[in-house]
Amino acid sequence: MTAALFTKADHQHMAEAIRLAWRGLYTTHPNPRVGCVLVKEGQIVGRGWHQIAGEGHAEVNALRQAGPAAQGATAYVSLEPCSHHGKTPPCAEALIQAGVAKVISAMEDPNPRVSGRGHQLLESAGIQTACGLMQAQAEQINPGFNKRMRTGLPWVVVKSAMSVDGRTAMANGESQWITDPAARADVQRLRARVEAIITGVDTVIADDPSLTVRPDMWPQAVAGDEPSAGWSWPHGRQPIQPLRVIVDSTLRTPRDAKILQQPGKTLIAHTSGDIEKVAVLAAAGAELTQLPAVNGKVDLNALLLELARREVNEVLVEAGAVLAGAFVQQQLVDQWVCYLAPKLMGSSARPVLDFDLRTMSQAQALHLTDLRQIGQDIRMTYGWSR
Amino acid sequence: MTAALFTKADHQHMAEAIRLAWRGLYTTHPNPRVGCVLVKEGQIVGRGWHQIAGEGHAEVNALRQAGPAAQGATAYVSLEPCSHHGKTPPCAEALIQAGVAKVISAMEDPNPRVSGRGHQLLESAGIQTACGLMQAQAEQINPGFNKRMRTGLPWVVVKSAMSVDGRTAMANGESQWITDPAARADVQRLRARVEAIITGVDTVIADDPSLTVRPDMWPQAVAGDEPSAGWSWPHGRQPIQPLRVIVDSTLRTPRDAKILQQPGKTLIAHTSGDIEKVAVLAAAGAELTQLPAVNGKVDLNALLLELARREVNEVLVEAGAVLAGAFVQQQLVDQWVCYLAPKLMGSSARPVLDFDLRTMSQAQALHLTDLRQIGQDIRMTYGWSR
Repeated sequence: MTAALFTKADHQHMAEAIRLAWRGLYTTHPNPRVGCVLVKEGQIVGRGWHQIAGEGHAEVNALRQAGPAAQGATAYVSLEPCSHHGKTPPCAEALIQAGVAKVISAMEDPNPRVSGRGHQLLESAGIQTACGLMQAQAEQINPGFNKRMRTGLPWVVVKSAMSVDGRTAMANGESQWITDPAARADVQRLRARVEAIITGVDTVIADDPSLTVRPDMWPQAVAGDEPSAGWSWPHGRQPIQPLRVIVDSTLRTPRDAKILQQPGKTLIAHTSGDIEKVAVLAAAGAELTQLPAVNGKVDLNALLLELARREVNEVLVEAGAVLAGAFVQQQLVDQWVCYLAPKLMGSSARPVLDFDLRTMSQAQALHLTDLRQIGQDIRMTYGWSR
Repeated sequence: MTAALFTKADHQHMAEAIRLAWRGLYTTHPNPRVGCVLVKEGQIVGRGWHQIAGEGHAEVNALRQAGPAAQGATAYVSLEPCSHHGKTPPCAEALIQAGVAKVISAMEDPNPRVSGRGHQLLESAGIQTACGLMQAQAEQINPGFNKRMRTGLPWVVVKSAMSVDGRTAMANGESQWITDPAARADVQRLRARVEAIITGVDTVIADDPSLTVRPDMWPQAVAGDEPSAGWSWPHGRQPIQPLRVIVDSTLRTPRDAKILQQPGKTLIAHTSGDIEKVAVLAAAGAELTQLPAVNGKVDLNALLLELARREVNEVLVEAGAVLAGAFVQQQLVDQWVCYLAPKLMGSSARPVLDFDLRTMSQAQALHLTDLRQIGQDIRMTYGWSR
């Protein structure tokens, strides 16, 4: 591989590949989102992106569009071409067969056990390769896939909706609705991009939520998120429903809960040995998994490992203050998306995150990565400074 | 007065008058901020704004700049010209003497007892008048003056600094510093525009604040606020120090508190009959005022009435959760400026506003009027929807 100095044109072509990759945001899971641009004599001759797992990868789609023009072209790919036979043949081989002259990747495969192999395969076929162009931008497309490949844990996003004074429910439990419909519709986009949504049994009992992706709630115009507002599911397909996960140590989920009656699967994570309750909930349509307990409650780290094992890249936690607070306190969260409604609920109302700190030096430091207004609500996106 | 259809040029000239008025934001108190533009044959021949109480009003300053060109000009004024002899002669008379042909005002004098008189005086001298051009924009320049004239109460702004989870101090009281220096410097601008800052005796005891306007903390670049970033006090003057008000029912203010040793005045509002304590604090430099008590504490409404009587248009409440929460609970607040720091302090930390509500329907509805990022902190400005 050459230690490359990239040109302005290289950056423009890679930016286009990254834009294309984003088009797969809601559909590629559990695969990474990848975009590819084929350029010959300064002209783009093929564009492709991975749309749906099991169908063509970005490179193959771009090669198909380019046809014979791919011969001698340079491929810009937002992720190192794969070298292994999965549901489809390896992309590196397809690039070799098409006769491309050069492959520039934004980043290596994040899986340390296979990273670099795609490039090696290409080089051994006499194709020039370069890597690292716009890597920071490319990393952002697949935070979950990258984290899972590198650490064996999914990327965890906690979603909260709260009043400006940091409250999610009155002392009496009243909580619906804090935010406006526009903000609630925006949450659909958070759900659609993840492979799993975690909630707690108390939320199931109190609110009886469905936790599904509902295209009818998809807002017509969303505040600048990628992919752009006009996006719709490809081929008229229905959205992929994320796995719904109920943290329910002692199996209190009602057998007639709405969440069990939705399209897609519901997994109940418990620590109970009660075979009868397991049977009842299994009969009601749930899948059940028994996990180790910590202080009598489901070990959240073990739950995340189990989800990663099921190829869950990104997880959305939509839970009450206790469960969401536990994820935060155990430092298992990568991103906090917080909707702030223009309300004051008072200091006897329930906190947004229930977790205990003693001194200012223990305060968790965040960094703001996105801030926007959705109607009268504010959406803040924070990462952790660790 | 004519029922006017205003032209695009009229709007442009009034917009300029309003921009000029904003230049007095930090210096005119207790007078309103006013701007004036004189236009003749489509050209601006004079600009003026009120800079400092006791010195020339906007109209007089604009007339001075225009000189003889004022004859036959149209005056655009962001507030009805005054008709009374105060520290300076009435502006309506000055406009008459200069021979202006027409006066267009953005709004009438908000004092119901004198509103319209300036226009009457002009009309009786044969000058055409019109009113109401860009009134909404003009109202925003002087929220405090307008409210005081209309209701006898000052405009009340509560300033808070909190973590994203709505906390201002740890359970042990630790609170410094939540926000970054940039946000703390921004607070200087809130202080500089008000006539009074209210705090509580507990804050005085715990933090020993000075609560002064400090030009050395004035940030070089502030996020787009009017007047613009390059603004400085006119004629090299020192800032006017707002009246510092300590809510201290039982006179617990330490006689050596820093707040008593600053330039400007400190007023202690109490409900105590303890003449000895009064004498000690008076000797320490404080002014004291005894006010009615409600539940053993200073009646906050009575305090605001007392401040209005002292020509306080705008008040900034920089207090702990209990006092700030009391102002909010009693619905005495017009604006909440809240700095949100990228931290999580946990649910045992102290709330931003300490006040009690029972049901969601009691939640106070706000509306967002401004949102901006100051470094890694977010500044939100809310009004009340009443």
